Amino acid sequence: MPRPEVYRTIAAVRAASRQARSRGKLVGLVPTMGALHEGHASLIRRAADECGHVIVSIFVNPIQFDDLGDLSRYPRTRDADLEVCAACGATAVFCPSEAEMYPRGRPLTRVSVSGLTDCLCGATRPGHFDGVATVCTKLFAICEPDKAYFGEKDYQQLLVVKRLVADLNLPVEIVPCPLVREPDGLALSSRNARLSSEERAEALAISRSLFAAIELFERGERSVDALVDAVRSPLTELSLGEVDYVELLGADDLSPIDRVDRNAVLAVAVRFPSARLIDNVLLSA
Amino acid sequence: MPRPEVYRTIAAVRAASRQARSRGKLVGLVPTMGALHEGHASLIRRAADECGHVIVSIFVNPIQFDDLGDLSRYPRTRDADLEVCAACGATAVFCPSEAEMYPRGRPLTRVSVSGLTDCLCGATRPGHFDGVATVCTKLFAICEPDKAYFGEKDYQQLLVVKRLVADLNLPVEIVPCPLVREPDGLALSSRNARLSSEERAEALAISRSLFAAIELFERGERSVDALVDAVRSPLTELSLGEVDYVELLGADDLSPIDRVDRNAVLAVAVRFPSARLIDNVLLSA
Repeated sequence: MPRPEVYRTIAAVRAASRQARSRGKLVGLVPTMGALHEGHASLIRRAADECGHVIVSIFVNPIQFDDLGDLSRYPRTRDADLEVCAACGATAVFCPSEAEMYPRGRPLTRVSVSGLTDCLCGATRPGHFDGVATVCTKLFAICEPDKAYFGEKDYQQLLVVKRLVADLNLPVEIVPCPLVREPDGLALSSRNARLSSEERAEALAISRSLFAAIELFERGERSVDALVDAVRSPLTELSLGEVDYVELLGADDLSPIDRVDRNAVLAVAVRFPSARLIDNVLLSA
Repeated sequence: MPRPEVYRTIAAVRAASRQARSRGKLVGLVPTMGALHEGHASLIRRAADECGHVIVSIFVNPIQFDDLGDLSRYPRTRDADLEVCAACGATAVFCPSEAEMYPRGRPLTRVSVSGLTDCLCGATRPGHFDGVATVCTKLFAICEPDKAYFGEKDYQQLLVVKRLVADLNLPVEIVPCPLVREPDGLALSSRNARLSSEERAEALAISRSLFAAIELFERGERSVDALVDAVRSPLTELSLGEVDYVELLGADDLSPIDRVDRNAVLAVAVRFPSARLIDNVLLSA
């Protein structure tokens, strides 16, 4: 497996992308904040299946953190990340410094997506999705990808990015990829590494409660209240974790629904002392 | 002079731009709202000098109007506009419908540039520069120009666009072009067509007062108060026009200054019953 080229400057990664395209290659981008796990690996492999030039960006984007403690404790595992990129078929890794991405500090220019960002994580993480939308717009402009790969784990982020691409006519196709779980059900997250063993054991209740709701749904339950309650009830009994939200919303636009008579997303966030975890399942009506 | 090709869809204008680039041509974009005058013509000619494929976009962008009356009265002169485009060397004209640009109505996604937009026109036209920044981001993504041409007449707009391009790493060079005046000094504007002959006669006081301030400056005056007063005093005596603002600010970032010891812009807005007019001059320290 050839090592991917590592780029630290915007000019260099853009030039490489243009050169690849001029040789007839499709350009794929997998935007990440590093601390790569099997979820990221699945995105990179998918990109490598579909594109001849695959850029993995690794940048812990400060402007999307609403909690400076979370930013400073965000795991950074550069050498291991490069191994993952190589093993999964990335041809380029873009590791810019903060000064390269934000040479004048916090940028005056912000991209924001209203409507989609008032609920779920948007309600408790002010500015988070503006930071995501802004850095994704920058990464698309820098790397000029034909396709960009996003996990359904961050479901609201996926919708925000799809919407901004549509609204701003950005010439990139957003490819959603399934959430990846540990064998015991825990949704993969870079923040899982911060959990104590007690927290991790409790965190299993999140996916367990979502799976229970799927079973209810498959047996015919369509009431949003009943399905949400099936998730919330077991989670309120946790001793370390505190429920941030449990919501069941329209899958295409996160609009409130009473009954699951169209595709919906059942999404959860739970705050543990060491990390806030999110998870979701899709219910296909 | 060959007639430029007229495109009404995003897909078609983008395809033509990509084809031109693949043939080794530079792509230039002149974003306009139509009602083209000699100011626009100078932008198009400059673009045609520098680029092999010159797109003039003509789109009266509803989301940048804070005043619906101004939007409905904005002059629309399509046939004459196409003549100007042809005569000045444009190779493509992009005339999208509102539904093509905003298929879901007002977009959820907004691009905004803070700091630069609190003063001058930003102070009295809420949302105006967000609308400008959003439509320019769209037009750059649609047309994929190497260079885009903006007049210094809309000086604040020029700085906003330059800043968003820098902050979002958009791969386009912004080319500023000088303001163009009537022989009697009036700054060219599509809105001039709405002025009564009385208003137009009064409006000459705007450029006259700016020229007087330049003369003071050239004789050594560096006090912002004195230079602003040289513009404001004659304008307060107008019977039809009402001063919206007279400001003298740093030319690179519109920051307040006390003395003109760096490059500065002296900018004016005057509200007449039929139209609000703006004008400015640059003072080089």
